[in-house]
Amino acid sequence: MGNTFGHLFRVTTGGVSHGPGYAVIIDGCPPGLPLSVEDLLPDLRRRRPGQSKIVTQRKEDDAPEIWSGVFEGHTDGTPITILFRNTDQRSPDYGDIKDKYRPGHADFTFDAKYGFRDYRGGGRSSARETICRVAAGAIAKKLLARLGIRILGYVKQVGDVYANIPDPTAVTLEQVEATPVRCPDAVAAARMIDLIDEVRKDQDSIGGVSELVAVGVPPGWGEPVFDKLKADLAKALLSLPAVMAFEYGAGFAVASARGSANNDVFVRKEERIGTSTNRHGGMLGGISSGEPIVCRVAIKPTSSLSRPQSTVTRAGEPTEIATRGRHDPCLLPRFVPMGEAMMALVLVDHWLRWRAQCSTEETNRATVHRLQ
Amino acid sequence: MGNTFGHLFRVTTGGVSHGPGYAVIIDGCPPGLPLSVEDLLPDLRRRRPGQSKIVTQRKEDDAPEIWSGVFEGHTDGTPITILFRNTDQRSPDYGDIKDKYRPGHADFTFDAKYGFRDYRGGGRSSARETICRVAAGAIAKKLLARLGIRILGYVKQVGDVYANIPDPTAVTLEQVEATPVRCPDAVAAARMIDLIDEVRKDQDSIGGVSELVAVGVPPGWGEPVFDKLKADLAKALLSLPAVMAFEYGAGFAVASARGSANNDVFVRKEERIGTSTNRHGGMLGGISSGEPIVCRVAIKPTSSLSRPQSTVTRAGEPTEIATRGRHDPCLLPRFVPMGEAMMALVLVDHWLRWRAQCSTEETNRATVHRLQ
Amino acid sequence: MGNTFGHLFRVTTGGVSHGPGYAVIIDGCPPGLPLSVEDLLPDLRRRRPGQSKIVTQRKEDDAPEIWSGVFEGHTDGTPITILFRNTDQRSPDYGDIKDKYRPGHADFTFDAKYGFRDYRGGGRSSARETICRVAAGAIAKKLLARLGIRILGYVKQVGDVYANIPDPTAVTLEQVEATPVRCPDAVAAARMIDLIDEVRKDQDSIGGVSELVAVGVPPGWGEPVFDKLKADLAKALLSLPAVMAFEYGAGFAVASARGSANNDVFVRKEERIGTSTNRHGGMLGGISSGEPIVCRVAIKPTSSLSRPQSTVTRAGEPTEIATRGRHDPCLLPRFVPMGEAMMALVLVDHWLRWRAQCSTEETNRATVHRLQ
Amino acid sequence: MGNTFGHLFRVTTGGVSHGPGYAVIIDGCPPGLPLSVEDLLPDLRRRRPGQSKIVTQRKEDDAPEIWSGVFEGHTDGTPITILFRNTDQRSPDYGDIKDKYRPGHADFTFDAKYGFRDYRGGGRSSARETICRVAAGAIAKKLLARLGIRILGYVKQVGDVYANIPDPTAVTLEQVEATPVRCPDAVAAARMIDLIDEVRKDQDSIGGVSELVAVGVPPGWGEPVFDKLKADLAKALLSLPAVMAFEYGAGFAVASARGSANNDVFVRKEERIGTSTNRHGGMLGGISSGEPIVCRVAIKPTSSLSRPQSTVTRAGEPTEIATRGRHDPCLLPRFVPMGEAMMALVLVDHWLRWRAQCSTEETNRATVHRLQ
Repeated sequence: MGNTFGHLFRVTTGGVSHGPGYAVIIDGCPPGLPLSVEDLLPDLRRRRPGQSKIVTQRKEDDAPEIWSGVFEGHTDGTPITILFRNTDQRSPDYGDIKDKYRPGHADFTFDAKYGFRDYRGGGRSSARETICRVAAGAIAKKLLARLGIRILGYVKQVGDVYANIPDPTAVTLEQVEATPVRCPDAVAAARMIDLIDEVRKDQDSIGGVSELVAVGVPPGWGEPVFDKLKADLAKALLSLPAVMAFEYGAGFAVASARGSANNDVFVRKEERIGTSTNRHGGMLGGISSGEPIVCRVAIKPTSSLSRPQSTVTRAGEPTEIATRGRHDPCLLPRFVPMGEAMMALVLVDHWLRWRAQCSTEETNRATVHRLQ
Repeated sequence: MGNTFGHLFRVTTGGVSHGPGYAVIIDGCPPGLPLSVEDLLPDLRRRRPGQSKIVTQRKEDDAPEIWSGVFEGHTDGTPITILFRNTDQRSPDYGDIKDKYRPGHADFTFDAKYGFRDYRGGGRSSARETICRVAAGAIAKKLLARLGIRILGYVKQVGDVYANIPDPTAVTLEQVEATPVRCPDAVAAARMIDLIDEVRKDQDSIGGVSELVAVGVPPGWGEPVFDKLKADLAKALLSLPAVMAFEYGAGFAVASARGSANNDVFVRKEERIGTSTNRHGGMLGGISSGEPIVCRVAIKPTSSLSRPQSTVTRAGEPTEIATRGRHDPCLLPRFVPMGEAMMALVLVDHWLRWRAQCSTEETNRATVHRLQ
Repeated sequence: MGNTFGHLFRVTTGGVSHGPGYAVIIDGCPPGLPLSVEDLLPDLRRRRPGQSKIVTQRKEDDAPEIWSGVFEGHTDGTPITILFRNTDQRSPDYGDIKDKYRPGHADFTFDAKYGFRDYRGGGRSSARETICRVAAGAIAKKLLARLGIRILGYVKQVGDVYANIPDPTAVTLEQVEATPVRCPDAVAAARMIDLIDEVRKDQDSIGGVSELVAVGVPPGWGEPVFDKLKADLAKALLSLPAVMAFEYGAGFAVASARGSANNDVFVRKEERIGTSTNRHGGMLGGISSGEPIVCRVAIKPTSSLSRPQSTVTRAGEPTEIATRGRHDPCLLPRFVPMGEAMMALVLVDHWLRWRAQCSTEETNRATVHRLQ
Repeated sequence: MGNTFGHLFRVTTGGVSHGPGYAVIIDGCPPGLPLSVEDLLPDLRRRRPGQSKIVTQRKEDDAPEIWSGVFEGHTDGTPITILFRNTDQRSPDYGDIKDKYRPGHADFTFDAKYGFRDYRGGGRSSARETICRVAAGAIAKKLLARLGIRILGYVKQVGDVYANIPDPTAVTLEQVEATPVRCPDAVAAARMIDLIDEVRKDQDSIGGVSELVAVGVPPGWGEPVFDKLKADLAKALLSLPAVMAFEYGAGFAVASARGSANNDVFVRKEERIGTSTNRHGGMLGGISSGEPIVCRVAIKPTSSLSRPQSTVTRAGEPTEIATRGRHDPCLLPRFVPMGEAMMALVLVDHWLRWRAQCSTEETNRATVHRLQ
């Protein structure tokens, strides 16, 4: 269960890393959006293994095939079906994991849940599944772009190297893509790359933090109780592999803050009401405030290591395992498009909810019609 | 939208803080669980305003009425309907917020979303809605207790006061309830109480961190892709008011960790396979590992302050607001039962999913039948 | 499970016939709809026991209390909570059914499903639950009325008495309400009333057919695959007690028809495209065509009879049962508002889906804005 | 929207008739079921065009490819992804329908809903989508078979030719498959075949009725309120193209029946409680009774005719259309596996719900463990 995401913009994925490929069915995209395979490629390239020296050198064929939902160059309102074929599977690389539990992986928990598992490269737990999400997210981002909403993620921390980002909303895609580590602070980026290179040589891996920003979201998206925008973002991002933590706005720092210092006061901003600061990360009561939505996630160091780690066999016997595959020494650079995709999926879903529930003509004029 | 939580154990809430009361309908509870109003009272009392000097002195009548779903002392498989009447509403206290936007509250975003709002005490955005969740959570906790699962939360940090909790799984309910601040470290608790008292006198408020622990969850609960256990926990907890951040296991600390140090290695533990450390917080690949589930959330300082704060009116004119109501100087003590409730709802939902999907007779014998 | 209906306009009900009462939570109603208790009363009166001699003389207090979701006379976008208290419960009337299975009722199947049951008056299987649906339906009908959509049901057949309804779309509410049997054909109505009186005196009951019509539904509502409008209508109506069959348009008569005679040809109708006949009942490919939606359901004769019927005890011993309660000799007159309510719930749900998914500005102007 | 069916056994389909192919993702199948492509073929062959002279001679390549969810010959609990490639598309046959609305088809309603449509062979409204459902249904039927449940459909009426089926539960698959029309009454089958041949030569089409039977369903499946088993069956079957009506048990005949004659009395049947007759079609209060589940659907005559029919263009101009494609003169023979599939999907979904909610050890032993 649980292979579908979203209430109105629904993404269902199927497929495993070492089978024939993956399929994703995207249900609920409004008709009329110009769409082609080319729209999917940029983010797929940002996610792709082998894109630089600091990511895994594994080769995957990430060419998407659109099987339905696009007619004469536009979405037609019916489900968008996209396929990805697996090509470079190299099954022998993974043979050892059949009977040994890799530390930090889902091998043991899959066995506990299902009684047995597809042990080829992680099977359904492989992060290759995110290829489906990145494709769906590219469509979501395109829908949002037509509403004037821009989503951008970047790497904020790798190990003990912290980027200096004075204004998250001022970061550009060009800055992010300027270095293979996707950190817009060039000085920090260089140090991050060195660090990643160092851990790689050391047959080790390193964690980090990614920050995600959505600019242009109008006030009023999100639901006040269970489906708070912050809650859906947290779920979306925690549903990605290796994400261990989520925070938005001031995040964990609120724990040591006083209300008088933490509250963002409302002010008039030209034609709209806003806040003078944004410690609330663009969401109040679970609903967007019109200020930029800013959140961060922590990603653990890659669990797969070339160096031997102690573990047990399925029978519980002590043993060692060294995963010989080609793994990312740091997941952060390739995480960025995945995080952006999940953020976009949540926002599009709440945009559609908003369209369904909104009432005033003014609001319609401002937002519904902007898509036209 | 978004007033229902859960897929198989579904909780739907309705009601506002200054209307006649609240209703919660809990759908999907298996039949046969002994249940009465008395089962709901302990956690409701832990959530109740006025329980101690360090929480709001507002008085609420939190007596639950069970209208259906329990027959002759047992749940009967049909929806459990519980009502709470509002009594101490004191509407005049809130009159000022009709036209002025309280910083940190949902007043502005509700107006942006719906065009107008119930301005009496926050209306639907009032945290009084959590009374429904705590009642539902008490039922969920009782179901889990029959499976040998214990859920316990406590306060880990208030402002700059940190509790020393050497072993989260060793904390007892008695320790937590020993002080009004619900911090099991008695020394830290005393300092937290002093700090809360200080900010209260200063017409201010203070944030904090709560840690939540589930002991006894068997391996195999959770879904591998979108409905990862960690993702559903994150959503559940972020759906509570004032929660700004979530982390599990090592959490944000993984950002600066190396894989070789962060991975928990598998070992044989008597009759089962486990890990020697628990930096993974009891979840691997989104599925429970059998180790204790440990997570933390950060809660912002109460937004309502008695001291004046600058803001704007609905028309955008600058003004000041001092919320005269009786507010918690620190949300943490009353948060604990809310956090436990949401954790319990997620776990029960995944337990029912597990029952639906499981296959082997052994697993059935071990877990399905334990409820009997 | 299964106590919630709808995807965007979600109705959740709780309560049993012989407990304190019922609660219904309606989630997803757009804000701004003028609403008060008075809007609910007309349909509740049409559903109410004791309204005429040909229905049950049982007395129920059907006064709704709106607990939330309406503020200053308008829906405010948050869940609408409505309560109904039970007053005339007369539990002793039902004592016999604790250990004996009433033919045609859910006593046996509840025991089989849950292991035991609330035997007081049917418990959760009581048709009194439909009071919640009728209240929710009244809100849905009011939303639809603002879009120019009128929903009307009536009795078409009772036993072997058939009404002559030359044009379903010409029937008026006044005609329907002119007789207690709710059949707009006055001649047939008189014969139906005689027949119902006859079976009542005979300690028996009689079945019938109700026809439901929606006029003014624009073309384009409904989904092409699983959530076809016809499929959702069928589910909605079959979810009502005692409904054994559903058909729309030509219905079962298509079985003996040829395509050349059954197809409705498209024609130009002033400003729109329509069909010259309506054997398709207003739905093509699961989507509304703009022609009136017409469907029919068959309702079985009341299962409860005052005359003795043979049955078995819970232990399987042969016995007899005569249900001494006050039952409808014919369910049809009171069914009409229930059927209308379910039809309205389906249409509002698909209207909201349409708003979420629609694309062209013209369509928005025509339909979204009509609510304003 | 609406391209997913089911709550716990979830089937999502994507694809169009004249694109590259179809994908179906089946989420929620328990692990451990032996499964291969061969299990899908029998029902796919029964659905396939060109299987006999009385169905369409269109050729489709219906070879399924399983891309995931099966490992080493068994389902592994992860989503089952199945692909079907389109080969014999013959687009030129359909060119005329781009600008003309075919009577009885979804051309006009798609345009009204989406603003434009994929006009190649019906696009998303093509009945070729049911290939996905038949494949999913074959898996569902295999799960049910392991519980001792057999699902069988057959043709009961074509035009004015009625089959004589004294006992629906005694019909065998061999009898059904003995003739190309899938009517187990050999005499009626011959007349049906003649009739279909006659209408085909006459460039016309003919409707009919199919009866569907599930034997072996234990008592206790289904939910008492909105998700009644009868309601979910009605939705499932009405979601199939061309289905205009649904009834179960005595169906529409109850309209003229008296309660004393219609009620099925409970009797002891060896080791269980049952009813002496089955006018209730195996469902009481929306829950299975243990008696055979029997329902019927009416299917309209094929809308596509080779003879000219009058219609209008997209611009509303009067015109004629003769659909030159190769169409079924009668949909009934190929409907049977589709109807069985939808019935199986509903039953498996309710079986899984039952597993999640059930409580007593006895019930578990009887039913949950039967899968082992």
